[in-house]
Amino acid sequence: MTQVDVRQRILSDNAAAATTLRERFAASRTLVLNLVSSPGSGKTTLLEATVRALAGRLRLGAIEGDIATERDADRLRALGIPAHQILTGGSCHLDARQVRGALEAHDLGPLDVLFIENVGNLVCPTSYDLGEDFKVALLSVTEGEDKPFKYPSIFAKAEVTVVTKADLLPYVSFRLDDVRAQVAALRPAGTLLVTSATTGRGIGEWCALLEQRLAAKRAAGA
Amino acid sequence: MTQVDVRQRILSDNAAAATTLRERFAASRTLVLNLVSSPGSGKTTLLEATVRALAGRLRLGAIEGDIATERDADRLRALGIPAHQILTGGSCHLDARQVRGALEAHDLGPLDVLFIENVGNLVCPTSYDLGEDFKVALLSVTEGEDKPFKYPSIFAKAEVTVVTKADLLPYVSFRLDDVRAQVAALRPAGTLLVTSATTGRGIGEWCALLEQRLAAKRAAGA
Repeated sequence: MTQVDVRQRILSDNAAAATTLRERFAASRTLVLNLVSSPGSGKTTLLEATVRALAGRLRLGAIEGDIATERDADRLRALGIPAHQILTGGSCHLDARQVRGALEAHDLGPLDVLFIENVGNLVCPTSYDLGEDFKVALLSVTEGEDKPFKYPSIFAKAEVTVVTKADLLPYVSFRLDDVRAQVAALRPAGTLLVTSATTGRGIGEWCALLEQRLAAKRAAGA
Repeated sequence: MTQVDVRQRILSDNAAAATTLRERFAASRTLVLNLVSSPGSGKTTLLEATVRALAGRLRLGAIEGDIATERDADRLRALGIPAHQILTGGSCHLDARQVRGALEAHDLGPLDVLFIENVGNLVCPTSYDLGEDFKVALLSVTEGEDKPFKYPSIFAKAEVTVVTKADLLPYVSFRLDDVRAQVAALRPAGTLLVTSATTGRGIGEWCALLEQRLAAKRAAGA
């Protein structure tokens, strides 16, 4: 078995597990997002702001992927939502079998929206379907405006790109128009939101998008 | 051949190529650094500041690793140093055979210091020796102070950790003492530098470290 064969078998096993997950999420009428970004782009911070904004309106839960530490799940549990941490044992992405195993071992209860926060990485998570409704790519303004074209796969696969840390725009070189043009080229029908968890900019728009997508999924499955 | 066998063969092939590279760099008396960080931590910006500071004193060159775009090599060539861009074709790290192939195909000329800027990724590059004298891990203050313990392998393997974008410290939550403690736990004899390419903070210290390490390598090889 060659290296290519091994990779194909891994991706095919992953696709089978992702199909099972997608059926499970359809049955439970849960909207599922797979969040991907560089380390430190603010995935957990966006989720904290989301939980604060939607508390009491929607039942939210999270699966957190990291190489090491339970820190991210702890941050979300501190806000009162169920969160399970997967430690990937050195792997640079989550896979569908890990997510399925986590849900079987740790029931998060009935959820309207499940956030799957992937390992901080713009490359590896791209190829692994986790049964999600859509992928969300995050890009903080401190990372530089060249990132979509440098990491084109994830920005092409993500239905939604969330620009984070917009409160730091005055202090960094980051041409938002340039980023918009790159994302539009890679994902013409995609959505781009500009947010700051610090000032609250764009958080309402982001939460409205979640509610619209949840309603659309439920209408389609009714 | 199982997945584990394939991985072991890849790493063993890489180790052989890295040994050849290390012999080549010893013969040419070139100090070689392997720079690793998240996307957007400022690897290329640190190199730009380094080139500006050491221009005329040392012969510098760079190999840039990216999934896509020649942008980073272009930035360094614009400053007058030889730079070759390796496009990894989707791979999340450079390997020693790519570096050897690049040096065979594109002679960078005699160099005092060769910077190998890896693909933006805190995970994948960790396992691949590129024949370097030492690894440098970069962490920007906007990424949050939890990163060393979340990505322990690279901060344990890097002899030098460079904290970047220190000019943004007033605007973000980043406890430098916490990062120092994590890095010291992971790499007790390591060096941590705090820098800003914008204000110039720490750039002199960084350049002095390069000159000391180059002198030490030449003294050892004399």
